[in-house]
Amino acid sequence: MTGTDAGGPAAVRPRVGHIQFLNCLPLYWGLARTGNLLDLDLTKDTPEKLSDQLVSGSLDIGPITCVEYLRNADRLVVLPDIAVGSDGPVMSCVIVSKVPLAELDGRPVALGSTSRTSVRLARLLLEEREGVRPEYFGCPPDLDAMLARADAAVLIGDPALRASLQQAPTQGLAVHDLGAMWKEWTGLPFVFAVWAARRDYADRHPETVAAVHRAFLESRDLSLTEAAQVAAQAARWESFEAPLLERYFSEALDFSLGRRQLAGIAEFARRVAADSGFAPDVAIGLLEPAPVG
Amino acid sequence: MTGTDAGGPAAVRPRVGHIQFLNCLPLYWGLARTGNLLDLDLTKDTPEKLSDQLVSGSLDIGPITCVEYLRNADRLVVLPDIAVGSDGPVMSCVIVSKVPLAELDGRPVALGSTSRTSVRLARLLLEEREGVRPEYFGCPPDLDAMLARADAAVLIGDPALRASLQQAPTQGLAVHDLGAMWKEWTGLPFVFAVWAARRDYADRHPETVAAVHRAFLESRDLSLTEAAQVAAQAARWESFEAPLLERYFSEALDFSLGRRQLAGIAEFARRVAADSGFAPDVAIGLLEPAPVG
Repeated sequence: MTGTDAGGPAAVRPRVGHIQFLNCLPLYWGLARTGNLLDLDLTKDTPEKLSDQLVSGSLDIGPITCVEYLRNADRLVVLPDIAVGSDGPVMSCVIVSKVPLAELDGRPVALGSTSRTSVRLARLLLEEREGVRPEYFGCPPDLDAMLARADAAVLIGDPALRASLQQAPTQGLAVHDLGAMWKEWTGLPFVFAVWAARRDYADRHPETVAAVHRAFLESRDLSLTEAAQVAAQAARWESFEAPLLERYFSEALDFSLGRRQLAGIAEFARRVAADSGFAPDVAIGLLEPAPVG
Repeated sequence: MTGTDAGGPAAVRPRVGHIQFLNCLPLYWGLARTGNLLDLDLTKDTPEKLSDQLVSGSLDIGPITCVEYLRNADRLVVLPDIAVGSDGPVMSCVIVSKVPLAELDGRPVALGSTSRTSVRLARLLLEEREGVRPEYFGCPPDLDAMLARADAAVLIGDPALRASLQQAPTQGLAVHDLGAMWKEWTGLPFVFAVWAARRDYADRHPETVAAVHRAFLESRDLSLTEAAQVAAQAARWESFEAPLLERYFSEALDFSLGRRQLAGIAEFARRVAADSGFAPDVAIGLLEPAPVG
Protein backbone atom coordinates (compact mmCIF):
# COMPACT_ATOMS: atom_id res chain seq x y z
CA MET A 1 0.00 0.00 0.00
CA THR A 2 1.28 3.44 -0.89
CA GLY A 3 0.77 6.59 1.14
CA THR A 4 -2.81 6.92 -0.07
CA ASP A 5 -5.71 4.51 -0.06
CA ALA A 6 -6.21 5.08 -3.76
CA GLY A 7 -5.33 2.27 -6.15
CA GLY A 8 -4.81 2.60 -9.88
CA PRO A 9 -7.63 2.98 -12.36
CA ALA A 10 -10.12 0.13 -12.26
CA ALA A 11 -9.43 -2.77 -14.63
CA VAL A 12 -12.27 -4.32 -16.57
CA ARG A 13 -13.12 -7.94 -15.86
CA PRO A 14 -13.04 -10.18 -18.94
CA ARG A 15 -16.50 -10.79 -20.40
CA VAL A 16 -16.81 -14.56 -20.38
CA GLY A 17 -19.59 -16.83 -21.60
CA HIS A 18 -21.01 -19.92 -19.91
CA ILE A 19 -23.36 -22.44 -21.55
CA GLN A 20 -26.33 -22.82 -19.25
CA PHE A 21 -26.89 -26.47 -20.16
CA LEU A 22 -26.30 -29.57 -18.11
CA ASN A 23 -23.25 -30.54 -20.18
CA CYS A 24 -21.34 -27.48 -18.94
CA LEU A 25 -22.42 -27.63 -15.32
CA PRO A 26 -19.10 -29.24 -14.26
CA LEU A 27 -17.24 -26.20 -15.58
CA TYR A 28 -19.45 -23.85 -13.57
CA TRP A 29 -19.14 -26.04 -10.47
CA GLY A 30 -15.44 -25.45 -10.24
CA LEU A 31 -15.72 -21.71 -10.85
CA ALA A 32 -18.26 -21.63 -8.03
CA ARG A 33 -15.96 -23.55 -5.69
CA THR A 34 -12.63 -21.86 -6.28
CA GLY A 35 -13.77 -18.24 -6.04
CA ASN A 36 -12.57 -17.68 -9.61
CA LEU A 37 -16.03 -16.43 -10.57
CA LEU A 38 -15.18 -13.09 -8.96
CA ASP A 39 -12.62 -12.45 -11.68
CA LEU A 40 -15.14 -12.95 -14.50
CA ASP A 41 -17.99 -10.89 -15.90
CA LEU A 42 -20.01 -14.01 -16.66
CA THR A 43 -22.87 -14.22 -19.17
CA LYS A 44 -24.96 -17.38 -19.12
CA ASP A 45 -26.87 -18.25 -22.25
CA THR A 46 -27.46 -20.88 -24.93
CA PRO A 47 -24.53 -22.09 -27.06
CA GLU A 48 -25.88 -20.31 -30.15
CA LYS A 49 -26.26 -16.94 -28.45
CA LEU A 50 -22.86 -17.16 -26.77
CA SER A 51 -21.23 -18.07 -30.08
CA ASP A 52 -22.79 -15.00 -31.70
CA GLN A 53 -21.71 -12.76 -28.82
CA LEU A 54 -18.11 -13.96 -28.95
CA VAL A 55 -17.90 -13.41 -32.70
CA SER A 56 -19.59 -10.00 -32.58
CA GLY A 57 -17.31 -8.81 -29.79
CA SER A 58 -19.76 -8.49 -26.91
CA LEU A 59 -17.92 -11.33 -25.15
CA ASP A 60 -14.13 -11.64 -24.90
CA ILE A 61 -13.75 -15.33 -24.09
CA GLY A 62 -16.19 -18.21 -24.10
CA PRO A 63 -17.48 -21.43 -25.53
CA ILE A 64 -18.28 -21.50 -29.23
CA THR A 65 -19.90 -24.36 -31.09
CA CYS A 66 -17.65 -26.26 -33.46
CA VAL A 67 -19.26 -25.09 -36.73
CA GLU A 68 -19.32 -21.45 -35.60
CA TYR A 69 -15.71 -21.68 -34.49
CA LEU A 70 -14.64 -23.09 -37.86
CA ARG A 71 -16.48 -20.30 -39.67
CA ASN A 72 -14.65 -17.65 -37.61
CA ALA A 73 -11.34 -19.41 -36.97
CA ASP A 74 -9.29 -16.50 -38.33
CA ARG A 75 -10.62 -14.14 -35.69
CA LEU A 76 -10.35 -16.51 -32.70
CA VAL A 77 -7.72 -18.38 -30.71
CA VAL A 78 -8.68 -21.68 -29.10
CA LEU A 79 -7.84 -22.36 -25.44
CA PRO A 80 -5.95 -25.68 -25.30
CA ASP A 81 -7.02 -28.69 -23.29
CA ILE A 82 -10.65 -27.72 -22.69
CA ALA A 83 -13.77 -28.43 -24.75
CA VAL A 84 -17.13 -30.20 -24.59
CA GLY A 85 -17.15 -33.37 -26.62
CA SER A 86 -17.29 -37.12 -26.35
CA ASP A 87 -14.98 -39.97 -27.18
CA GLY A 88 -17.75 -42.44 -27.90
CA PRO A 89 -21.37 -42.35 -26.64
CA VAL A 90 -22.36 -38.84 -25.49
CA MET A 91 -25.90 -39.67 -24.26
CA SER A 92 -27.26 -36.20 -25.04
CA CYS A 93 -27.10 -36.10 -28.87
CA VAL A 94 -29.24 -38.80 -30.41
CA ILE A 95 -31.42 -39.88 -33.29
CA VAL A 96 -34.52 -41.68 -32.01
CA SER A 97 -35.95 -43.74 -34.83
CA LYS A 98 -39.02 -45.86 -35.56
CA VAL A 99 -37.25 -47.65 -38.43
CA PRO A 100 -33.63 -48.64 -39.22
CA LEU A 101 -31.62 -45.57 -40.22
CA ALA A 102 -30.87 -47.09 -43.64
CA GLU A 103 -34.61 -46.89 -44.42
CA LEU A 104 -34.88 -43.13 -43.88
CA ASP A 105 -34.20 -42.16 -47.51
CA GLY A 106 -36.84 -39.63 -48.54
CA ARG A 107 -38.60 -40.06 -45.19
CA PRO A 108 -39.43 -37.20 -42.77
CA VAL A 109 -36.89 -36.60 -39.98
CA ALA A 110 -37.67 -34.04 -37.27
CA LEU A 111 -34.86 -31.76 -36.05
CA GLY A 112 -35.62 -30.80 -32.45
CA SER A 113 -32.73 -28.40 -32.11
CA THR A 114 -31.28 -25.32 -33.75
CA SER A 115 -27.74 -26.34 -32.73
CA ARG A 116 -25.86 -26.02 -35.99
CA THR A 117 -23.04 -28.35 -34.97
CA SER A 118 -25.18 -31.20 -33.66
CA VAL A 119 -27.70 -30.98 -36.48
CA ARG A 120 -24.89 -30.90 -39.04
CA LEU A 121 -23.36 -33.98 -37.38
CA ALA A 122 -26.69 -35.81 -37.50
CA ARG A 123 -27.15 -34.95 -41.18
CA LEU A 124 -23.56 -35.94 -41.96
CA LEU A 125 -23.97 -39.33 -40.33
CA LEU A 126 -27.32 -40.02 -42.01
CA GLU A 127 -26.20 -38.88 -45.45
CA GLU A 128 -22.58 -40.00 -45.65
CA ARG A 129 -22.45 -42.95 -43.27
CA GLU A 130 -25.98 -44.37 -43.71
CA GLY A 131 -26.32 -43.17 -47.30
CA VAL A 132 -29.84 -41.79 -46.93
CA ARG A 133 -31.32 -38.39 -47.83
CA PRO A 134 -34.25 -37.78 -45.48
CA GLU A 135 -36.63 -34.80 -45.66
CA TYR A 136 -35.77 -32.66 -42.64
CA PHE A 137 -38.05 -30.28 -40.80
CA GLY A 138 -37.54 -28.30 -37.61
CA CYS A 139 -39.86 -28.49 -34.61
CA PRO A 140 -39.89 -28.22 -30.80
CA PRO A 141 -38.00 -31.01 -28.98
CA ASP A 142 -41.03 -33.09 -27.96
CA LEU A 143 -40.42 -36.72 -28.89
CA ASP A 144 -44.07 -37.80 -29.18
CA ALA A 145 -45.04 -34.80 -31.30
CA MET A 146 -41.95 -35.26 -33.47
CA LEU A 147 -42.63 -38.93 -34.14
CA ALA A 148 -46.28 -38.25 -34.92
CA ARG A 149 -45.02 -36.47 -38.05
CA ALA A 150 -41.63 -38.12 -38.68
CA ASP A 151 -39.95 -41.52 -38.82
CA ALA A 152 -37.00 -40.30 -36.75
CA ALA A 153 -36.17 -37.40 -34.41
CA VAL A 154 -32.85 -35.66 -33.76
CA LEU A 155 -32.64 -34.51 -30.14
CA ILE A 156 -29.91 -32.59 -28.32
CA GLY A 157 -29.28 -31.82 -24.66
CA ASP A 158 -31.72 -32.47 -21.84
CA PRO A 159 -34.59 -33.52 -24.19
CA ALA A 160 -32.18 -36.06 -25.70
CA LEU A 161 -31.31 -37.48 -22.29
CA ARG A 162 -35.00 -37.71 -21.41
CA ALA A 163 -36.02 -39.23 -24.72
CA SER A 164 -33.27 -41.81 -24.89
CA LEU A 165 -33.29 -42.85 -21.24
CA GLN A 166 -36.91 -42.46 -20.22
CA GLN A 167 -39.16 -42.43 -23.30
CA ALA A 168 -37.61 -44.51 -26.09
CA PRO A 169 -37.00 -47.67 -24.05
CA THR A 170 -40.68 -47.93 -23.06
CA GLN A 171 -41.89 -47.32 -26.63
CA GLY A 172 -39.72 -49.81 -28.51
CA LEU A 173 -37.83 -47.07 -30.31
CA ALA A 174 -34.18 -47.32 -31.36
CA VAL A 175 -31.76 -44.73 -29.95
CA HIS A 176 -28.69 -43.91 -32.05
CA ASP A 177 -26.01 -42.00 -30.16
CA LEU A 178 -24.30 -39.45 -32.42
CA GLY A 179 -21.08 -39.57 -30.41
CA ALA A 180 -20.91 -43.35 -30.71
CA MET A 181 -21.74 -43.28 -34.44
CA TRP A 182 -19.03 -40.71 -35.13
CA LYS A 183 -16.45 -42.68 -33.14
CA GLU A 184 -17.31 -45.95 -34.93
CA TRP A 185 -17.09 -44.18 -38.28
CA THR A 186 -13.92 -42.15 -37.83
CA GLY A 187 -12.17 -43.61 -34.81
CA LEU A 188 -12.05 -40.09 -33.37
CA PRO A 189 -13.66 -38.10 -30.56
CA PHE A 190 -16.25 -35.49 -31.51
CA VAL A 191 -15.97 -31.93 -30.20
CA PHE A 192 -19.24 -30.02 -29.85
CA ALA A 193 -17.78 -26.75 -28.56
CA VAL A 194 -14.37 -25.26 -27.89
CA TRP A 195 -13.38 -22.35 -25.66
CA ALA A 196 -11.91 -19.42 -27.55
CA ALA A 197 -10.87 -15.81 -27.14
CA ARG A 198 -11.18 -13.16 -29.80
CA ARG A 199 -7.71 -12.79 -31.30
CA ASP A 200 -7.62 -9.02 -30.82
CA TYR A 201 -8.55 -9.40 -27.15
CA ALA A 202 -5.95 -12.13 -26.60
CA ASP A 203 -3.29 -9.92 -28.21
CA ARG A 204 -4.15 -7.01 -25.92
CA HIS A 205 -4.73 -9.02 -22.71
CA PRO A 206 -2.56 -12.14 -22.84
CA GLU A 207 -2.31 -12.43 -19.05
CA THR A 208 -6.05 -12.13 -18.54
CA VAL A 209 -6.73 -14.79 -21.16
CA ALA A 210 -4.13 -17.04 -19.53
CA ALA A 211 -5.78 -16.52 -16.13
CA VAL A 212 -9.26 -17.34 -17.46
CA HIS A 213 -7.82 -20.40 -19.19
CA ARG A 214 -6.28 -21.54 -15.88
CA ALA A 215 -9.57 -20.89 -14.09
CA PHE A 216 -11.47 -23.13 -16.51
CA LEU A 217 -8.85 -25.88 -16.33
CA GLU A 218 -8.87 -25.77 -12.52
CA SER A 219 -12.65 -25.81 -12.55
CA ARG A 220 -12.78 -28.81 -14.90
CA ASP A 221 -10.22 -30.72 -12.85
CA LEU A 222 -11.95 -29.99 -9.55
CA SER A 223 -15.35 -30.98 -10.87
CA LEU A 224 -14.07 -34.28 -12.25
CA THR A 225 -12.55 -35.01 -8.84
CA GLU A 226 -15.84 -34.09 -7.19
CA ALA A 227 -18.11 -35.56 -9.89
CA ALA A 228 -20.33 -37.33 -7.37
CA GLN A 229 -20.95 -34.04 -5.54
CA VAL A 230 -21.62 -32.16 -8.79
CA ALA A 231 -24.12 -34.85 -9.76
CA ALA A 232 -25.81 -34.87 -6.35
CA GLN A 233 -26.24 -31.10 -6.40
CA ALA A 234 -27.46 -31.05 -10.02
CA ALA A 235 -29.95 -33.85 -9.28
CA ARG A 236 -31.80 -31.50 -6.92
CA TRP A 237 -32.89 -29.44 -9.89
CA GLU A 238 -32.84 -31.77 -12.90
CA SER A 239 -35.20 -34.59 -13.82
CA PHE A 240 -32.38 -37.13 -13.67
CA GLU A 241 -30.98 -39.01 -10.73
CA ALA A 242 -27.48 -38.42 -9.41
CA PRO A 243 -25.93 -41.71 -10.61
CA LEU A 244 -26.98 -41.02 -14.20
CA LEU A 245 -25.68 -37.46 -14.01
CA GLU A 246 -22.36 -38.66 -12.59
CA ARG A 247 -22.01 -41.12 -15.47
CA TYR A 248 -22.92 -38.36 -17.94
CA PHE A 249 -20.40 -35.90 -16.48
CA SER A 250 -17.49 -38.24 -15.90
CA GLU A 251 -17.87 -40.97 -18.56
CA ALA A 252 -19.94 -39.71 -21.49
CA LEU A 253 -18.67 -36.14 -21.74
CA ASP A 254 -15.07 -35.43 -22.67
CA PHE A 255 -13.88 -32.03 -21.46
CA SER A 256 -10.41 -32.34 -22.92
CA LEU A 257 -8.94 -30.90 -26.11
CA GLY A 258 -5.75 -32.72 -27.04
CA ARG A 259 -4.26 -34.14 -30.20
CA ARG A 260 -7.09 -36.65 -30.84
CA GLN A 261 -9.84 -34.09 -30.21
CA LEU A 262 -8.15 -31.62 -32.57
CA ALA A 263 -7.97 -34.39 -35.18
CA GLY A 264 -11.72 -34.93 -34.63
CA ILE A 265 -12.42 -31.26 -35.33
CA ALA A 266 -10.23 -31.33 -38.45
CA GLU A 267 -11.98 -34.47 -39.70
CA PHE A 268 -15.41 -32.93 -39.14
CA ALA A 269 -14.28 -29.72 -40.90
CA ARG A 270 -13.03 -31.69 -43.87
CA ARG A 271 -16.31 -33.59 -44.20
CA VAL A 272 -18.75 -30.68 -43.88
CA ALA A 273 -16.76 -27.75 -45.30
CA ALA A 274 -18.47 -27.81 -48.69
CA ASP A 275 -21.76 -26.35 -47.42
CA SER A 276 -20.65 -24.78 -44.12
CA GLY A 277 -18.73 -21.64 -45.04
CA PHE A 278 -15.13 -22.59 -44.26
CA ALA A 279 -12.23 -24.31 -45.99
CA PRO A 280 -11.83 -28.11 -45.59
CA ASP A 281 -8.32 -27.54 -44.25
CA VAL A 282 -9.17 -24.58 -42.00
CA ALA A 283 -6.31 -23.98 -39.55
CA ILE A 284 -7.15 -24.34 -35.86
CA GLY A 285 -5.19 -21.62 -34.06
CA LEU A 286 -4.40 -22.54 -30.48
CA LEU A 287 -3.54 -19.97 -27.84
CA GLU A 288 0.22 -19.88 -27.36
CA PRO A 289 1.41 -20.35 -23.78
CA ALA A 290 1.85 -16.97 -22.08
CA PRO A 291 5.48 -15.80 -22.13
CA VAL A 292 7.24 -16.48 -18.85
CA GLY A 293 8.85 -13.41 -17.40
CA MET B 1 -31.35 -45.02 -7.19
CA THR B 2 -34.47 -46.85 -8.27
CA GLY B 3 -34.66 -49.41 -11.06
CA THR B 4 -34.58 -46.70 -13.70
CA ASP B 5 -32.21 -43.82 -14.31
CA ALA B 6 -35.13 -41.43 -14.41
CA GLY B 7 -35.55 -38.98 -11.54
CA GLY B 8 -38.66 -37.03 -10.69
CA PRO B 9 -39.78 -33.97 -12.61
CA ALA B 10 -37.21 -31.18 -12.62
CA ALA B 11 -37.50 -28.64 -9.81
CA VAL B 12 -37.09 -24.96 -10.55
CA ARG B 13 -34.20 -23.15 -8.95
CA PRO B 14 -35.19 -20.09 -6.91
CA ARG B 15 -34.75 -16.84 -8.83
CA VAL B 16 -32.44 -14.82 -6.62
CA GLY B 17 -31.07 -11.29 -7.00
CA HIS B 18 -27.55 -10.05 -6.35
CA ILE B 19 -26.49 -6.39 -6.18
CA GLN B 20 -23.55 -5.97 -8.53
CA PHE B 21 -21.91 -3.28 -6.41
CA LEU B 22 -18.79 -3.43 -4.32
CA ASN B 23 -20.79 -3.37 -1.09
CA CYS B 24 -22.32 -6.77 -1.86
CA LEU B 25 -19.18 -8.45 -3.17
CA PRO B 26 -18.59 -10.26 0.15
CA LEU B 27 -21.97 -11.97 -0.21
CA TYR B 28 -21.10 -13.16 -3.72
CA TRP B 29 -17.64 -14.28 -2.60
CA GLY B 30 -19.07 -16.85 -0.25
CA LEU B 31 -21.60 -18.14 -2.80
CA ALA B 32 -18.70 -18.56 -5.23
CA ARG B 33 -16.64 -20.45 -2.66
CA THR B 34 -19.19 -22.84 -1.17
CA GLY B 35 -20.71 -24.12 -4.43
CA ASN B 36 -24.10 -22.76 -3.29
CA LEU B 37 -24.36 -20.75 -6.50
CA LEU B 38 -25.40 -23.92 -8.32
CA ASP B 39 -28.64 -23.95 -6.37
CA LEU B 40 -29.58 -20.41 -7.42
CA ASP B 41 -30.84 -18.87 -10.64
CA LEU B 42 -28.92 -15.66 -9.98
CA THR B 43 -29.67 -12.27 -11.53
CA LYS B 44 -27.08 -9.53 -11.05
CA ASP B 45 -28.25 -5.96 -11.37
CA THR B 46 -28.50 -2.59 -9.67
CA PRO B 47 -30.38 -2.30 -6.35
CA GLU B 48 -33.22 -0.38 -8.00
CA LYS B 49 -33.81 -2.93 -10.75
CA LEU B 50 -33.58 -5.88 -8.36
CA SER B 51 -36.06 -4.21 -6.01
CA ASP B 52 -38.51 -3.76 -8.88
CA GLN B 53 -38.05 -7.36 -10.02
CA LEU B 54 -38.67 -8.77 -6.55
CA VAL B 55 -41.84 -6.73 -6.11
CA SER B 56 -43.14 -7.49 -9.61
CA GLY B 57 -42.55 -11.23 -9.16
CA SER B 58 -39.78 -11.83 -11.66
CA LEU B 59 -37.46 -12.66 -8.74
CA ASP B 60 -38.38 -14.85 -5.77
CA ILE B 61 -35.76 -13.78 -3.22
CA GLY B 62 -33.28 -10.95 -3.17
CA PRO B 63 -32.03 -7.67 -1.81
CA ILE B 64 -34.44 -4.77 -1.73
CA THR B 65 -33.61 -1.22 -0.78
CA CYS B 66 -35.02 -0.04 2.51
CA VAL B 67 -37.57 2.45 1.11
CA GLU B 68 -38.83 -0.05 -1.49
CA TYR B 69 -39.11 -2.74 1.16
CA LEU B 70 -41.14 -0.45 3.43
CA ARG B 71 -43.48 0.41 0.56
CA ASN B 72 -44.11 -3.29 -0.14
CA ALA B 73 -43.74 -4.76 3.34
CA ASP B 74 -47.14 -6.47 3.24
CA ARG B 75 -46.10 -8.61 0.26
CA LEU B 76 -42.62 -9.54 1.51
CA VAL B 77 -40.96 -11.45 4.34
CA VAL B 78 -37.52 -10.32 5.49
CA LEU B 79 -34.71 -12.85 5.95
CA PRO B 80 -33.31 -12.40 9.47
CA ASP B 81 -29.70 -11.61 10.29
CA ILE B 82 -28.60 -10.39 6.86
CA ALA B 83 -28.65 -6.90 5.35
CA VAL B 84 -26.36 -4.19 3.99
CA GLY B 85 -26.01 -1.28 6.34
CA SER B 86 -23.60 0.47 8.65
CA ASP B 87 -23.34 1.08 12.36
CA GLY B 88 -21.49 4.37 12.02
CA PRO B 89 -19.38 5.57 9.06
CA VAL B 90 -20.23 3.67 5.86
CA MET B 91 -17.61 5.34 3.58
CA SER B 92 -19.74 4.90 0.44
CA CYS B 93 -22.67 7.27 1.13
CA VAL B 94 -21.52 10.84 1.56
CA ILE B 95 -22.28 14.51 1.15
CA VAL B 96 -19.23 16.36 -0.19
CA SER B 97 -19.63 20.04 0.57
CA LYS B 98 -17.89 23.32 -0.20
CA VAL B 99 -19.57 25.05 2.76
CA PRO B 100 -20.82 23.95 6.19
CA LEU B 101 -24.03 21.93 5.87
CA ALA B 102 -25.91 24.47 7.98
CA GLU B 103 -25.33 27.03 5.21
CA LEU B 104 -27.03 25.00 2.46
CA ASP B 105 -30.50 26.51 2.95
CA GLY B 106 -31.82 27.50 -0.49
CA ARG B 107 -28.50 26.50 -2.07
CA PRO B 108 -28.10 24.02 -4.96
CA VAL B 109 -27.25 20.43 -3.93
CA ALA B 110 -26.47 17.86 -6.63
CA LEU B 111 -27.84 14.33 -6.24
CA GLY B 112 -25.49 11.94 -8.05
CA SER B 113 -27.62 8.88 -7.51
CA THR B 114 -31.11 7.59 -8.16
CA SER B 115 -30.98 5.37 -5.06
CA ARG B 116 -34.20 6.24 -3.32
CA THR B 117 -33.06 5.09 0.12
CA SER B 118 -29.72 6.88 0.16
CA VAL B 119 -31.07 10.07 -1.37
CA ARG B 120 -33.97 10.07 1.09
CA LEU B 121 -31.49 9.61 3.94
CA ALA B 122 -29.37 12.53 2.69
CA ARG B 123 -32.43 14.77 2.40
CA LEU B 124 -33.67 13.71 5.84
CA LEU B 125 -30.35 14.53 7.46
CA LEU B 126 -30.04 17.89 5.70
CA GLU B 127 -33.62 18.94 6.37
CA GLU B 128 -34.35 17.52 9.80
CA ARG B 129 -30.92 17.35 11.43
CA GLU B 130 -29.23 20.36 9.82
CA GLY B 131 -32.47 22.32 9.39
CA VAL B 132 -31.80 23.44 5.83
CA ARG B 133 -33.92 23.24 2.65
CA PRO B 134 -31.53 23.07 -0.31
CA GLU B 135 -32.58 23.11 -3.97
CA TYR B 136 -31.87 19.60 -5.24
CA PHE B 137 -31.10 18.55 -8.77
CA GLY B 138 -30.07 15.19 -10.21
CA CYS B 139 -26.95 14.65 -12.31
CA PRO B 140 -24.29 12.06 -13.13
CA PRO B 141 -21.98 11.16 -10.23
CA ASP B 142 -18.96 13.26 -11.29
CA LEU B 143 -17.76 15.30 -8.32
CA ASP B 144 -16.10 18.13 -10.26
CA ALA B 145 -19.07 18.59 -12.59
CA MET B 146 -21.47 18.46 -9.64
CA LEU B 147 -19.61 21.08 -7.63
CA ALA B 148 -19.32 23.35 -10.67
CA ARG B 149 -23.11 23.80 -10.36
CA ALA B 150 -23.77 23.05 -6.68
CA ASP B 151 -22.49 23.84 -3.18
CA ALA B 152 -22.67 20.19 -2.16
CA ALA B 153 -22.91 16.78 -3.80
CA VAL B 154 -24.57 13.59 -2.60
CA LEU B 155 -22.65 10.52 -3.79
CA ILE B 156 -23.35 6.82 -3.32
CA GLY B 157 -21.30 3.68 -3.96
CA ASP B 158 -18.00 3.58 -5.82
CA PRO B 159 -18.14 7.28 -6.87
CA ALA B 160 -18.61 8.13 -3.19
CA LEU B 161 -15.55 6.09 -2.18
CA ARG B 162 -13.52 7.76 -4.91
CA ALA B 163 -14.73 11.27 -4.12
CA SER B 164 -14.32 11.04 -0.38
CA LEU B 165 -10.99 9.18 -0.32
CA GLN B 166 -9.23 10.44 -3.42
CA GLN B 167 -10.75 13.73 -4.57
CA ALA B 168 -12.15 15.67 -1.61
CA PRO B 169 -9.00 15.52 0.58
CA THR B 170 -6.87 17.13 -2.14
CA GLN B 171 -9.44 19.87 -2.84
CA GLY B 172 -10.14 21.06 0.69
CA LEU B 173 -13.71 19.78 0.60
CA ALA B 174 -15.58 18.48 3.64
CA VAL B 175 -16.88 14.91 3.49
CA HIS B 176 -19.96 14.09 5.58
CA ASP B 177 -20.59 10.38 5.98
CA LEU B 178 -24.32 9.62 5.96
CA GLY B 179 -23.88 6.49 8.10
CA ALA B 180 -21.97 8.45 10.73
CA MET B 181 -24.47 11.35 10.69
CA TRP B 182 -27.40 8.95 11.15
CA LYS B 183 -25.66 7.13 14.00
CA GLU B 184 -24.81 10.41 15.80
CA TRP B 185 -28.38 11.62 15.36
CA THR B 186 -30.32 8.49 16.34
CA GLY B 187 -27.82 6.22 18.06
CA LEU B 188 -28.84 3.48 15.63
CA PRO B 189 -27.38 1.59 12.67
CA PHE B 190 -28.71 2.42 9.22
CA VAL B 191 -29.92 -0.34 6.89
CA PHE B 192 -29.63 0.38 3.16
CA ALA B 193 -31.08 -2.92 1.92
CA VAL B 194 -32.61 -6.05 3.38
CA TRP B 195 -32.99 -9.50 1.85
CA ALA B 196 -36.59 -10.58 1.36
CA ALA B 197 -38.73 -13.21 -0.27
CA ARG B 198 -42.12 -12.62 -1.78
CA ARG B 199 -44.63 -13.81 0.80
CA ASP B 200 -46.51 -16.04 -1.65
CA TYR B 201 -43.24 -17.70 -2.72
CA ALA B 202 -42.14 -18.23 0.90
CA ASP B 203 -45.52 -19.80 1.71
CA ARG B 204 -45.22 -22.24 -1.20
CA HIS B 205 -41.49 -23.01 -0.87
CA PRO B 206 -40.51 -22.62 2.79
CA GLU B 207 -37.63 -25.10 2.54
CA THR B 208 -36.14 -23.41 -0.53
CA VAL B 209 -36.30 -20.01 1.14
CA ALA B 210 -34.68 -21.46 4.26
CA ALA B 211 -31.91 -22.99 2.11
CA VAL B 212 -31.24 -19.71 0.28
CA HIS B 213 -31.22 -17.91 3.62
CA ARG B 214 -28.64 -20.39 4.97
CA ALA B 215 -26.57 -19.99 1.78
CA PHE B 216 -26.42 -16.21 2.24
CA LEU B 217 -25.57 -16.48 5.94
CA GLU B 218 -22.81 -19.01 5.21
CA SER B 219 -21.52 -16.79 2.44
CA ARG B 220 -21.48 -13.71 4.67
CA ASP B 221 -19.73 -15.58 7.48
CA LEU B 222 -17.11 -17.09 5.17
CA SER B 223 -16.34 -13.79 3.50
CA LEU B 224 -15.90 -12.00 6.84
CA THR B 225 -13.48 -14.75 7.88
CA GLU B 226 -11.66 -14.37 4.56
CA ALA B 227 -12.03 -10.57 4.29
CA ALA B 228 -8.38 -10.06 3.35
CA GLN B 229 -8.72 -12.50 0.45
CA VAL B 230 -11.98 -10.91 -0.72
CA ALA B 231 -10.29 -7.52 -0.66
CA ALA B 232 -7.19 -8.77 -2.48
CA GLN B 233 -9.27 -10.33 -5.24
CA ALA B 234 -11.56 -7.29 -5.55
CA ALA B 235 -8.53 -4.97 -5.71
CA ARG B 236 -7.55 -6.59 -9.01
CA TRP B 237 -10.59 -5.02 -10.65
CA GLU B 238 -11.43 -1.95 -8.59
CA SER B 239 -9.66 1.38 -8.37
CA PHE B 240 -9.04 0.89 -4.65
CA GLU B 241 -6.27 -0.92 -2.90
CA ALA B 242 -6.82 -4.07 -0.90
CA PRO B 243 -6.33 -2.57 2.60
CA LEU B 244 -9.02 0.04 1.96
CA LEU B 245 -11.38 -2.58 0.59
CA GLU B 246 -10.78 -4.83 3.59
CA ARG B 247 -11.62 -1.95 5.93
CA TYR B 248 -14.72 -1.16 3.88
CA PHE B 249 -15.94 -4.78 3.90
CA SER B 250 -15.14 -5.68 7.48
CA GLU B 251 -15.40 -2.40 9.41
CA ALA B 252 -17.59 0.08 7.54
CA LEU B 253 -20.28 -2.23 6.21
CA ASP B 254 -22.60 -4.04 8.57
CA PHE B 255 -24.10 -7.20 7.04
CA SER B 256 -26.18 -8.11 10.08
CA LEU B 257 -29.87 -7.58 10.78
CA GLY B 258 -30.59 -7.91 14.47
CA ARG B 259 -32.61 -6.00 17.04
CA ARG B 260 -30.67 -2.72 16.67
CA GLN B 261 -30.75 -2.79 12.85
CA LEU B 262 -34.50 -3.46 12.91
CA ALA B 263 -34.88 -0.49 15.27
CA GLY B 264 -32.89 1.57 12.74
CA ILE B 265 -35.29 0.61 9.96
CA ALA B 266 -38.30 1.44 12.16
CA GLU B 267 -36.81 4.80 13.10
CA PHE B 268 -36.13 5.66 9.44
CA ALA B 269 -39.67 4.57 8.50
CA ARG B 270 -41.16 6.79 11.22
CA ARG B 271 -39.17 9.81 10.07
CA VAL B 272 -39.79 9.58 6.31
CA ALA B 273 -43.21 7.91 6.13
CA ALA B 274 -45.11 11.12 5.44
CA ASP B 275 -43.91 11.47 1.87
CA SER B 276 -42.74 7.92 1.12
CA GLY B 277 -45.88 5.85 0.65
CA PHE B 278 -45.98 3.75 3.82
CA ALA B 279 -47.26 4.04 7.36
CA PRO B 280 -44.90 5.42 10.05
CA ASP B 281 -45.45 2.24 12.08
CA VAL B 282 -45.23 -0.20 9.15
CA ALA B 283 -44.73 -3.74 10.49
CA ILE B 284 -41.50 -5.48 9.48
CA GLY B 285 -42.43 -9.14 8.86
CA LEU B 286 -39.50 -11.47 9.46
CA LEU B 287 -39.33 -14.96 8.00
CA GLU B 288 -40.32 -17.49 10.63
CA PRO B 289 -37.80 -20.27 11.23
CA ALA B 290 -38.65 -23.31 9.08
CA PRO B 291 -40.59 -25.94 11.05
CA VAL B 292 -38.40 -28.78 12.26
CA GLY B 293 -39.76 -32.02 10.96
